[in-house]
Amino acid sequence: QLPYKNAKLPVEQRVKDLLGRMTPEEKFRQLFMVPGDLGEHPEQFKSGLFGFQVNTTTVSNNAAGQMMTYNPGRDTRQTIEKVNSIQRYFVEQSRLGIPVIIFDEALHGLVRTGATSFPQSIALAATWDKALMGRVANAIAYECKQRGIRQILSPVVNLATDVRWGRVEETYGEDPMLSAAMGVAYVRAFEQMGIITTPKHFVVNHGAGGRDSYPVEATERELEESYFVPFKACIKDGGARSIMTAYNSLNGSPCTANDWLLNKKLKQDWGFKGFVISDAGAVGGANVLHFTASGYEDAGKQAIENGLDVIFQTDIAHADLFKAPFINSKVNRAKLDSAVARVLRVKFELGLFEHPYVPQVSVNDTAYLRGHHQLAKEASLKSIVLLKNDERKVLPLAAVAKTIAVIGPDAIEARLGGYSGPGNDKVNLLDALKKTVGADKTVQFAPGCGREHKLYNVVAPEFLSSKVGGKRIAGLEAEYYNNTSLEGNPVVSRNDPKIDFQWTLFSPDPKINYDFYSCRWTGYLTGPKTGTYKIGIEGNEGYRLYIDDRLLLDTWTNQAYGTLVAEYYVEESKEYKIRVEYKEPAGNARFKLVWNIDVVDETKRAIAEAVQLAEESDVVVVTVGTNEGEFQDRSHLNLPGRQEEMIQRLAATGKPIVVVLFGGSAVTMSSWLDKVNAVVDVWYPGESGGEAIADVLLGKVNPSGKLPITFPMNEGQLPLTYNHKPTGRGDDYADGTGQPLFPFGYGLSYTQFEYRLVSVSSQKIKAGDSVRVNFVVSNVGSFAGEEVVQLYMRDELSSVVRPLKELKAFQRVHLEPREQKALSFTITPAMLQMLNAKMQRVVEPGTFRIMIGSSSKDIRLVERVVVMKGKL
Amino acid sequence: QLPYKNAKLPVEQRVKDLLGRMTPEEKFRQLFMVPGDLGEHPEQFKSGLFGFQVNTTTVSNNAAGQMMTYNPGRDTRQTIEKVNSIQRYFVEQSRLGIPVIIFDEALHGLVRTGATSFPQSIALAATWDKALMGRVANAIAYECKQRGIRQILSPVVNLATDVRWGRVEETYGEDPMLSAAMGVAYVRAFEQMGIITTPKHFVVNHGAGGRDSYPVEATERELEESYFVPFKACIKDGGARSIMTAYNSLNGSPCTANDWLLNKKLKQDWGFKGFVISDAGAVGGANVLHFTASGYEDAGKQAIENGLDVIFQTDIAHADLFKAPFINSKVNRAKLDSAVARVLRVKFELGLFEHPYVPQVSVNDTAYLRGHHQLAKEASLKSIVLLKNDERKVLPLAAVAKTIAVIGPDAIEARLGGYSGPGNDKVNLLDALKKTVGADKTVQFAPGCGREHKLYNVVAPEFLSSKVGGKRIAGLEAEYYNNTSLEGNPVVSRNDPKIDFQWTLFSPDPKINYDFYSCRWTGYLTGPKTGTYKIGIEGNEGYRLYIDDRLLLDTWTNQAYGTLVAEYYVEESKEYKIRVEYKEPAGNARFKLVWNIDVVDETKRAIAEAVQLAEESDVVVVTVGTNEGEFQDRSHLNLPGRQEEMIQRLAATGKPIVVVLFGGSAVTMSSWLDKVNAVVDVWYPGESGGEAIADVLLGKVNPSGKLPITFPMNEGQLPLTYNHKPTGRGDDYADGTGQPLFPFGYGLSYTQFEYRLVSVSSQKIKAGDSVRVNFVVSNVGSFAGEEVVQLYMRDELSSVVRPLKELKAFQRVHLEPREQKALSFTITPAMLQMLNAKMQRVVEPGTFRIMIGSSSKDIRLVERVVVMKGKL
Repeated sequence: QLPYKNAKLPVEQRVKDLLGRMTPEEKFRQLFMVPGDLGEHPEQFKSGLFGFQVNTTTVSNNAAGQMMTYNPGRDTRQTIEKVNSIQRYFVEQSRLGIPVIIFDEALHGLVRTGATSFPQSIALAATWDKALMGRVANAIAYECKQRGIRQILSPVVNLATDVRWGRVEETYGEDPMLSAAMGVAYVRAFEQMGIITTPKHFVVNHGAGGRDSYPVEATERELEESYFVPFKACIKDGGARSIMTAYNSLNGSPCTANDWLLNKKLKQDWGFKGFVISDAGAVGGANVLHFTASGYEDAGKQAIENGLDVIFQTDIAHADLFKAPFINSKVNRAKLDSAVARVLRVKFELGLFEHPYVPQVSVNDTAYLRGHHQLAKEASLKSIVLLKNDERKVLPLAAVAKTIAVIGPDAIEARLGGYSGPGNDKVNLLDALKKTVGADKTVQFAPGCGREHKLYNVVAPEFLSSKVGGKRIAGLEAEYYNNTSLEGNPVVSRNDPKIDFQWTLFSPDPKINYDFYSCRWTGYLTGPKTGTYKIGIEGNEGYRLYIDDRLLLDTWTNQAYGTLVAEYYVEESKEYKIRVEYKEPAGNARFKLVWNIDVVDETKRAIAEAVQLAEESDVVVVTVGTNEGEFQDRSHLNLPGRQEEMIQRLAATGKPIVVVLFGGSAVTMSSWLDKVNAVVDVWYPGESGGEAIADVLLGKVNPSGKLPITFPMNEGQLPLTYNHKPTGRGDDYADGTGQPLFPFGYGLSYTQFEYRLVSVSSQKIKAGDSVRVNFVVSNVGSFAGEEVVQLYMRDELSSVVRPLKELKAFQRVHLEPREQKALSFTITPAMLQMLNAKMQRVVEPGTFRIMIGSSSKDIRLVERVVVMKGKL
Repeated sequence: QLPYKNAKLPVEQRVKDLLGRMTPEEKFRQLFMVPGDLGEHPEQFKSGLFGFQVNTTTVSNNAAGQMMTYNPGRDTRQTIEKVNSIQRYFVEQSRLGIPVIIFDEALHGLVRTGATSFPQSIALAATWDKALMGRVANAIAYECKQRGIRQILSPVVNLATDVRWGRVEETYGEDPMLSAAMGVAYVRAFEQMGIITTPKHFVVNHGAGGRDSYPVEATERELEESYFVPFKACIKDGGARSIMTAYNSLNGSPCTANDWLLNKKLKQDWGFKGFVISDAGAVGGANVLHFTASGYEDAGKQAIENGLDVIFQTDIAHADLFKAPFINSKVNRAKLDSAVARVLRVKFELGLFEHPYVPQVSVNDTAYLRGHHQLAKEASLKSIVLLKNDERKVLPLAAVAKTIAVIGPDAIEARLGGYSGPGNDKVNLLDALKKTVGADKTVQFAPGCGREHKLYNVVAPEFLSSKVGGKRIAGLEAEYYNNTSLEGNPVVSRNDPKIDFQWTLFSPDPKINYDFYSCRWTGYLTGPKTGTYKIGIEGNEGYRLYIDDRLLLDTWTNQAYGTLVAEYYVEESKEYKIRVEYKEPAGNARFKLVWNIDVVDETKRAIAEAVQLAEESDVVVVTVGTNEGEFQDRSHLNLPGRQEEMIQRLAATGKPIVVVLFGGSAVTMSSWLDKVNAVVDVWYPGESGGEAIADVLLGKVNPSGKLPITFPMNEGQLPLTYNHKPTGRGDDYADGTGQPLFPFGYGLSYTQFEYRLVSVSSQKIKAGDSVRVNFVVSNVGSFAGEEVVQLYMRDELSSVVRPLKELKAFQRVHLEPREQKALSFTITPAMLQMLNAKMQRVVEPGTFRIMIGSSSKDIRLVERVVVMKGKL
């Protein structure tokens, strides 16, 4: 038996032995992970592979492509068969028999058929319940392990310090401590079950304007005080054995090839022993986005040498782009071997060499899924945040409310949020409410206006044609120029079936400058029906639109973006000459020819119908939602479409209005909040979300979630977080407050909690001492309920500027009506620590302000502890 | 003769001699600058003083006070007399006879009676004309020198990277290179005339959300690449001999006491020999804002030891707060002496010991003021940016437009912007237009709705009363509690004449926690007249408002901010019990009792009147403006009040509409831009601004200003600058573009310029070589005009991530119709340099993209230069 196959030998010895046997090609393949499976040509994998994400395909075939499609896949049995057959190839057919790691996405549930879909991450954070988070993670891990999935590309522990970022829903909110607590609870459950977790995206991952993967400049202090905190906790306290780098650059180097971040901080300072993977398609980003590498080979070499271990690409075909420097020894040998060793080490630790296959045993026993469904409901119940419930006390819905109007597509869609599979037995709010209300109540539904308000369609190919050599053909004639003035000969002439383009990273054609070109489209437009319509352009300026040689639109000297249309009379089947001229002097083009033909605006009728239903009902439950997600950052935080208008119209009926907000981040509410009686934020509540919301609305369960993010008043306040450092002037604006709409940690209840009798075990302590803060919380209302009690601290005199307030601890407590509980927090030296000017973690003498409250702003009790001078 | 009084000795020797003679008290006084004059008790200055800002008084008597009032003062002769009499005291009556420095504000003109008011700084930047800037600075310097002012607290060379910041108007825009060029042109003129300049505010000065003086975390790279650039240029190239620190903290230390920033970078690395002053009241900010000092004494000591030289306070009385550690030798002796020596050195250099007094000679000759007025007009003419002029070509106003409607208060107010004196012969647009149009045209004016839309008044003291011991007295009874639940005994009971408070830094009373208190106001409200009115609260939640024991408003569990009112019927002279309860669990309170009684909303009538005038006219010139300034950051970028609505209403008349925008920063225009025909941004155009605008509108002068800032589409895109580094993903939002409304460098003309025939003197160069880019610009339109030709560059492969585009050079060129000019730029090694990973400035081999254009987006010509590998 070869030493590396001997399970009795220490892992390090096995790694060393195996490494010594590997060819450069085999080493390279261990550093390459892709979606897919063995496909038609398994022999291409004979040199091995890091691993596969099965049932997944790339969206584009470009090597810089970042997005993938997650096919839910077939049932568990079939997944196991597939996983085992893949593994069998590697174990039996590859030269060295190194097993692969089957990895997958499991942010809030495995994204595959048959797996439970729990509430989205931001909702899990809103529970402020670490134990619950651990149980949820354990359930997801069980469903992964069962299918042979041994690495998941979760959790997201970036701090949601800008609510415009499209991936806020995937995070645990803005606070380092809360994110760390949730991240650790999640990671630990998986790692203990032998599944590798991959905290991501290392690091920060959003920048100016809340934009995804925007360049980040951050000081070591900022990183150590905030953004590193949950990553470090996941690794050190949670035992995460992988980490995924971010697309963005950090201080001038792509995170994927950042020596300081990966080699110095992560591997050296933190002693991380696992392996670092890139985000999908990110390594090549050094040459196509960040311009710090001369090509894919250079980018791959730089990545590995600067601390990345595994290249994650969206297609196995990309391997050839990266391979050369690995094969011809251009990549530093020690760095290469270190990367391979890190991968092999984990493969040995997982026991894959000894137990490569997944047993089919428990597949038929699906009883546990009922428990997971129930657990998903419990999580949703604890995540729902009551944002408003005015003196009318519409919530919980009163016994006298006999007819309930439910409005909005979110009541039937039961959206699960980003990185979701289909879930099991998904329950929407409408069905749940119908099922839960007593026989004395009726529930009626109107879809309302929805989240979209479409005004224009792209002019479809069937209405566009051109003449080539006197012959009529479909599509427009397009001439592309390598200048911005349509001068000289076109470098590309082609037929474009329609004008609907997004040329961001690349230009229309490799022969064309990506940031300096112009185009002329000519041909004929056929009128689909007779009438006066609006026709125009949505996209970058400047352009000119001519119909029948008449100049309709001219933005040639402008450089903004927008939709501009003109009215034009067309007759059915008649042809009109069309010419569109466009210049792009700066790159990042979006350009569409649009009209309002065949745009049926149903919103007006739908709002009227909803208002009608409201008029006939005792109470109105209006569900509203946002559109967001990966690659979907928001520059407007108001509810999209005509939802705000619909809320106002519904409120104008005078009926009691309850707004149920679906979404993963903050929305602004200034145009309607004062007009409604109650608002609950239900996030993306998971497969049993409908049941949970119904229970909360009907008062079967008292809501107890707390916001893990700050809700701003308006976009102009962003970024806005509670834990910033002090201003040298004011916090407010001349035209508005600096205060949020709803602060971090906020969430109401059907009952009232009173905080009393605070005391500290010692007013004065020495650095290194702990101190206990005791207090009493009572339920002085008439509902049983849970309160998340929050401990914030502030250092009142320090050598380096400290935040005004920082969350240091929290606990969830259940109280029956009139029950009171004596509670306490222990303030440990770690909570009193700060980074001094020399970047050492120290406890400085001075006064610390202890604030206990129901939110970051609703502080109920204040105490002080003085750390005395002098040695321990 | 004492050595220090001997002008023949070297300055250093004089400094050393004088320093040796000084008492600690005398040293301390040289490090203390204040507004005011000798006042009633000149003897308090017997130990000397750094200097005075005359005709200036503090706004509050708090030692943390930051704002001052600038009395324009009397005429030049009287100013000279005052300056000389102050100086005479110090020269003749103080023990050592050390003269003072008379300092003042002169951002775009001295802020005093008789001085010329030039266009605001942002407008001067919009000229992109360094030579013009030098002439303007020279004119201001002359007016200062004449009055004996020997230091000015200008220029502001912070980068306006966030247009929400209230002080954008004071800057030279967002770009480091443009700001440096303008800053140097300004500084050099003053320093050459023997007036100390004070580039400020060192450094950055705005933070998250565009907030003034918000905490800044910035890497050395960010600072070196951007924020330091104009400061360093002002010092090294301009010869600035002072610098003012910012209120904000930088990387954990207040800028006022930041060892790295002041000692390491400024004094050591840059070799700065002048003196560093604080912003007004900033030193104490370490203890009242940043919490890094235990009190004023500690704050002053820390500041001097960490590199500050002069403490700037708003009142001489504050000196006693800081003095002790200077007198009792707690402040490091070497640091103290270094600071004093820096001050003395400059005082010797200025020749103040030899020529302490200002001659009255030239006072009666004011002919130069006519030249300065004309120069102000020239600056305004070159600063006006034509943002839009659609195919209707309404501008310049056609001969056939016989009747011109001028609308909006900005047409008559002629606002000068922040840090302005009254100016001389200030001309508003209305008067200028009337004067400039021929006899065949008439100009009529309507004020329109203005920039305010007031809905509520604070309830005035005359309507509030209370009973004390059965006796009726004015004002409400107020009880303040040191908890948030109005429990126990109040710690302060007092009479509050009205409820109109802003407790930001401090609490209502020193006995009350600044961040944890509650208050109950009780008493009577007298109805001023009979009717149903709206009454309520503008301010922080939560609160309760009761009238006659009826609960009208209850936000007790909320923690947002806003204005909430309820309707209430009151009878004239009748009294109603009133009770207001308020809790503040987090500090930074704003709280007002308001109603709509006596609020006369004139806006509706004013808009109707403006529309009426428009209907009767051939063309409409509508002036609109923003409100902004120091301590006046904006969280909404739309035009304030009902101005947007007014524009829309005017546009609906179908008349040609020209919008003239007054203000110092960007505004959003999405609700109206497509509805108007032309937009010109005139900034704050200075005392002759009206004449300049009239000339542009009438086509006497072709506008040629270019934006020094990026105009965003909406607030949700902020911060947005053109020169960011590449994204790792996309620039756009799911619900909108990432493109600006108007890009940096943008500005249209009445003519068209064509760019052609680009070539480089060498396609391949070695590091260290320069290369020339040649091209031709022609005026292909029918107006004479000026174009600002801009050179941008991009490093296409670099070891560290570089910006997508950076301004490297620009030139202004005048072209008659059909004229063409051969132009060129020299690309120097300095332009090719970057900071490598080791923070060394190097030219790296590789390709550089050369982009020449009419704005940062409207690139017209593209070339490449390759820097070859190999040694110089």
